[in-house]
Amino acid sequence: MSSETKHKIDACFSPHLYPVYADAESIVVVIDVFRATSAICVAFHYGADKIIPVASVEEAMQYKQQGFLAGAERDALKLDGFDFGNSPYDYMGDHVKGKTIALTTTNGTQAIEAARNAYKVVVGSFLNIDVLCEWLLKQNRGIILLCSGWKNKFNMEDALYAGAITEKIFDQSDKFTLGDGCLALKYLYQQAKHEPIKFLVHASHKERLSRLGLKKDIKYCLTPNQAPVIPILEGKYLVKLKL
Amino acid sequence: MSSETKHKIDACFSPHLYPVYADAESIVVVIDVFRATSAICVAFHYGADKIIPVASVEEAMQYKQQGFLAGAERDALKLDGFDFGNSPYDYMGDHVKGKTIALTTTNGTQAIEAARNAYKVVVGSFLNIDVLCEWLLKQNRGIILLCSGWKNKFNMEDALYAGAITEKIFDQSDKFTLGDGCLALKYLYQQAKHEPIKFLVHASHKERLSRLGLKKDIKYCLTPNQAPVIPILEGKYLVKLKL
Repeated sequence: MSSETKHKIDACFSPHLYPVYADAESIVVVIDVFRATSAICVAFHYGADKIIPVASVEEAMQYKQQGFLAGAERDALKLDGFDFGNSPYDYMGDHVKGKTIALTTTNGTQAIEAARNAYKVVVGSFLNIDVLCEWLLKQNRGIILLCSGWKNKFNMEDALYAGAITEKIFDQSDKFTLGDGCLALKYLYQQAKHEPIKFLVHASHKERLSRLGLKKDIKYCLTPNQAPVIPILEGKYLVKLKL
Repeated sequence: MSSETKHKIDACFSPHLYPVYADAESIVVVIDVFRATSAICVAFHYGADKIIPVASVEEAMQYKQQGFLAGAERDALKLDGFDFGNSPYDYMGDHVKGKTIALTTTNGTQAIEAARNAYKVVVGSFLNIDVLCEWLLKQNRGIILLCSGWKNKFNMEDALYAGAITEKIFDQSDKFTLGDGCLALKYLYQQAKHEPIKFLVHASHKERLSRLGLKKDIKYCLTPNQAPVIPILEGKYLVKLKL
């Protein structure tokens, strides 16, 4: 590839749309800011060994019955019979250290499933934004920012994060071109970045979490660089990328 | 329905995602600013009787062979053997008056096809924006702004128009709530509205059209209220809604 060739960054706003954006070469960043990909970063930051993302509650329960720790969330709530939901706070502490954890969530693990055959799949959140961007900049690859959304619809917080990634990468390198989705998000993030919580005030999932008393989670998930690790998919496991 | 009940406006960024947003009650506005839905508005403004939107070139050719006028565009170019492409300028004049025209385009007619079974399907462009918004405000229905995009990917100009519709309706009525997609577009449009052409300078399809020498089309398609008609789907035909 000539040094003149530019790589494309684009944003895909729903796992259901991923086949339209997929190619064999790009790195996929899976994004579920509230809260799956934030929780996954936290688990690895606290020493988890592996996470097994699964699409269904039944699969997660099978792992639980085999003696694994298991997390399960649907509609923002932790399901009965599991060790964790998808709050980052569930994964903070020595109880995750060295463990393998099965995890299923409403949106984030579905997005990982959709992108499973990509060249590389990594997990992004505000909690690991700088370390992830530094790594992405070194890869010389196209990037697909895969927003998990809410039940396959566009959601604001994932779009905002994809805009933040786009700005950071585009500002630090002239090796990238932006797809229209990323271009729109870059504009959006420019409006939002100084007051992200205020910007999200009318966003549907933030309202859903606020009603559930999860404002502490919201604030944490929007705080950059609290868990500077890069979870990467290797076969059926997410593991911590060695940097 | 109580007068307290609010209706939802949401934006769907790809025909491929439409099943995720579809419901039995909402009005769907199909949007393909560059250029199918702009051309359709112009055809009715110049007196066309009916337009038959079809998904494939073969179907359009069958109508042509039956003696209908027929338009066909792929990858921004008019196809050989047809009367029109999808430039609005192709449809200006007495040659369309009273005629039924078959039409297939890369994106816009695919979006109409996707939404065919909705409660009502209307066609939106900057060329009919005010008359369309006035009508939508009177309907007391949910609204799905279906952006045709580019080959099922998000595109900037359709998003911008959906943002313009959202702002106009939301500012004139307190009967609506916004989905996250519309909320993002409303922010986007606030940045863009004073200089839409400049805002679109890096948008992929505008660049594509500019390379093809179609700057006149771009400018026209962004000029509000040049064709104040509302095309609406009735069975297999688009017709001009009687106001």
